[in-house]
Amino acid sequence: MIRLHDNLSSGNGYKARLLLAQLGVPFERVEYDIDRAETRTPEFLRMNPNGRVPVLELEDGRFLPESNAILFYLAEGTPFLPDYRFGRAQVLRWTFFEQYSHEPNIASPRYWITHNLPMTEERRVTLEPKRRLGYAALGVMEGHLKDRKFFVENRYSIADIALYAYTHVADEGGFDLGRFPSINAWLKRVAAQPGHVPITWG
Amino acid sequence: MIRLHDNLSSGNGYKARLLLAQLGVPFERVEYDIDRAETRTPEFLRMNPNGRVPVLELEDGRFLPESNAILFYLAEGTPFLPDYRFGRAQVLRWTFFEQYSHEPNIASPRYWITHNLPMTEERRVTLEPKRRLGYAALGVMEGHLKDRKFFVENRYSIADIALYAYTHVADEGGFDLGRFPSINAWLKRVAAQPGHVPITWG
Repeated sequence: MIRLHDNLSSGNGYKARLLLAQLGVPFERVEYDIDRAETRTPEFLRMNPNGRVPVLELEDGRFLPESNAILFYLAEGTPFLPDYRFGRAQVLRWTFFEQYSHEPNIASPRYWITHNLPMTEERRVTLEPKRRLGYAALGVMEGHLKDRKFFVENRYSIADIALYAYTHVADEGGFDLGRFPSINAWLKRVAAQPGHVPITWG
Repeated sequence: MIRLHDNLSSGNGYKARLLLAQLGVPFERVEYDIDRAETRTPEFLRMNPNGRVPVLELEDGRFLPESNAILFYLAEGTPFLPDYRFGRAQVLRWTFFEQYSHEPNIASPRYWITHNLPMTEERRVTLEPKRRLGYAALGVMEGHLKDRKFFVENRYSIADIALYAYTHVADEGGFDLGRFPSINAWLKRVAAQPGHVPITWG
């Protein structure tokens, strides 16, 4: 059986859980306590030397880190990934946008707050820039969704899963989603997809 | 003809230039002055609402932002991308690693230094964490390359191009590559590939 090395509060882990659920692929979940550095043990670093969840473990024992690489791997050949070249490239474009411009600014404050981390000088100084860049990323999403139902070709895909993961809990990091009507309508459409599960499911 | 909206000092732009050169695809390059916010004009934002180079403009006028999505798009069906599912996933795994754990820590200090940007409080406070995380990313690469010639399946691919772009100029951001012998041997192997061009080419 496929195994997912994971942390239940992680939006990156949720991406894999949500897609596995919607694909109907049974999997075993192994939980790691990030706050206790359980992803930095020698055993974990053998699976992912970068020390981060999620890691997908295939039935033959091979390991695949990086949430959006896991999404792409699982989605190939399914309706969750376009079957033509430019469609795949657009999906990747939005998943790279997610990891570079969205996740570091929107997920980090949520992590600091929900895990009760101390407000170090670094966190204090970077919170305001992260807030600004996070709202800018949400603005890019809002503009794109104004006349679209989903991110790529008006069809639900792993681009939506990748961006849904941390957007739908952005308020936990202090972001006000009230000013983004198109994002809110899209969040509802994603949550209404067949087989949808919440971030707490696993 | 394909058009690349670009900035010559950008490692992300260099990824596309290098692959286009090695594929023998002719293209026209359009240069934007990042320091003068030429990627934030209404005209540019119509191509990429995220306001960043590079953007690939196809012959039919469609636009594709995000350097690693551009690499994947151009490499599909060529020897620069594995033709089997787990190989593609591994390539994506390393390109997501590059954008999340490598580029923000290694490219940003280089940008601040080479563009003579003022040392704001944010830059002062984040420089040391970025240094630490950048060295950690280089450590992950060093460990992976200890017994491998290239990042995926011992074959040169866009994973190598993505990681080469900012690693080979990491010294310009104050990183000492002297302590990473496997990375240095890999940099030489990448630079010896047929059709290789330097970051200044375009």
